[in-house]
Amino acid sequence: MRVIFNEEMKAVADDLDRMVRNVRKAIDGAGRALLDSDVEAAQAVIDGDIEIDALESSIIDQCVKLLAKQNPVATDLRVVVSTLRLAATFERMGDLARHIAEAARRSYPESPLSDEAKDLFSQMQDFLDETADNMVAMLADRDAKVAERIIRNDDKLDALHAKTFDLALSDEWTGSKQQLIDVVLLSRFMERLGDHAVSAARRVVFIVSGFDPSKEPSRDEDGAVE
Amino acid sequence: MRVIFNEEMKAVADDLDRMVRNVRKAIDGAGRALLDSDVEAAQAVIDGDIEIDALESSIIDQCVKLLAKQNPVATDLRVVVSTLRLAATFERMGDLARHIAEAARRSYPESPLSDEAKDLFSQMQDFLDETADNMVAMLADRDAKVAERIIRNDDKLDALHAKTFDLALSDEWTGSKQQLIDVVLLSRFMERLGDHAVSAARRVVFIVSGFDPSKEPSRDEDGAVE
Repeated sequence: MRVIFNEEMKAVADDLDRMVRNVRKAIDGAGRALLDSDVEAAQAVIDGDIEIDALESSIIDQCVKLLAKQNPVATDLRVVVSTLRLAATFERMGDLARHIAEAARRSYPESPLSDEAKDLFSQMQDFLDETADNMVAMLADRDAKVAERIIRNDDKLDALHAKTFDLALSDEWTGSKQQLIDVVLLSRFMERLGDHAVSAARRVVFIVSGFDPSKEPSRDEDGAVE
Repeated sequence: MRVIFNEEMKAVADDLDRMVRNVRKAIDGAGRALLDSDVEAAQAVIDGDIEIDALESSIIDQCVKLLAKQNPVATDLRVVVSTLRLAATFERMGDLARHIAEAARRSYPESPLSDEAKDLFSQMQDFLDETADNMVAMLADRDAKVAERIIRNDDKLDALHAKTFDLALSDEWTGSKQQLIDVVLLSRFMERLGDHAVSAARRVVFIVSGFDPSKEPSRDEDGAVE
C-alpha cells in the first residue's frame, strides 16, 4: 500500500509542479501583455488557462481516487488535502493572470495604463515574477524557507498596490476614467495574485512542518487597501 | 461504521448550515452598511467574520478526521470533498462582505457611493440578499432546483456590475476619484459574491446528482466585465 501511495502521490505532485510552472508562465505573459502591449502574449495567457484548469481537474480526480483506495492518514492525508487546496489556489492564479491579459487585449493597441502608472505596475510585475520563481522552487523542493520568504515579502506588493491608489488620487494623475477603472482593477488582480502566493506558501509550510490539520491555513490573505 | 459516518457528517452539515446563515447575515449587514451608512452594521460584519473563519477551520478539522477514520468512498467521499470546498467558498464570501463593510466604515459618515450610483448598488444588494436566502434554502434542503436558480440568475448581477462601469464612464457621473475607486472595487466585490454563490450552487448540484468526481465544478465563475 505504502509503495502504491508514494507512486501515486508522485504523479499528483508532478501535475502540481506542471500547474505552478504554467502559472509562472501565465504571470510572465500577463506582464508582457500589460507592460509591452504584447497582444500575442495576452492571447497565449488566455488560451493557456484551459490547460491550468484541466490540470486542476486531473489533480482533484487523482486525489479523490487516492483517498478512496489508499485511505491515507496522518501526514499522508494532510498532504492530499493540502494538494487539493494548492491546486485550487493555482487555478485561481491562472484566472487572475487571464483577467490581466484580457484587459491588455481589450485596450490594444493602447495600454490600459496611463503613463504615470507604468512604473508602479512594472515594479509590481517584477515582484510577481520573482514570487512566481519562488513558488516553482518552493514546490519543487518542498522548501519551507522559500515559502517563508514569499510570506514575508508580500507587504511590498501591498505597499505598491496602495501606492497605485495614492497615485490615482493625486494631481499627478493624467489618465482617463477608463484608465482609472483599469488601474484599480489591474492593481487589485496583482495584489490578489500575491495573496494567493502567500496562501500557497502557508500551505507548503504546513505540509513540511507538522501542524494540527485544524490549524491549517484556511484563508486567503487580504490586502490592507480595499 | 455507516451509522457513525452519518452522525459525524450530520455534525459537519450543521456547521456548514451555520456558516451559510452567517454569510447571509454578513451580506445583509454589508448592504445596510453600504446603502444606509449604518456603521454599527459595518462593525458587526467585520467582527462576525471571525466566527465564519472559525467555522471553516472546524469543518476542515472534522472532514480530515472523517476521511482518516471512516475512509468514505463513492458518494460519501464526494460529499466530504465538496463540503471542504463549500466551506472555502463561504469563508471567501465572508471576506468579501467584510471588505464592503470596511469600505463603508472607512468613508463614514459619508457614503463611499456617489448619489447616482446608489440605485444600481441597491439593485445589486437586492439581488445578493435574494441569492443569500436561496443559498440558505439550498443548503438546508440540498435542493438542486434552488441551486440551478442561483446559477441561472447570475447573469443579472453581471449585467448590473457592467452598468456601474458604464455609469462611471458616462456624463451622468458626478462622483470624486475616490468614489470612482470605491465604486469599481465595491462593484467587483459584489460581483464576486455572486460568482461564489454560483460556485457553491454548482457544488450542491454535484452532490445531489451523481457526476464523476473528476467533473466536479472546480472553477470560480468569472464575470464578463473585468
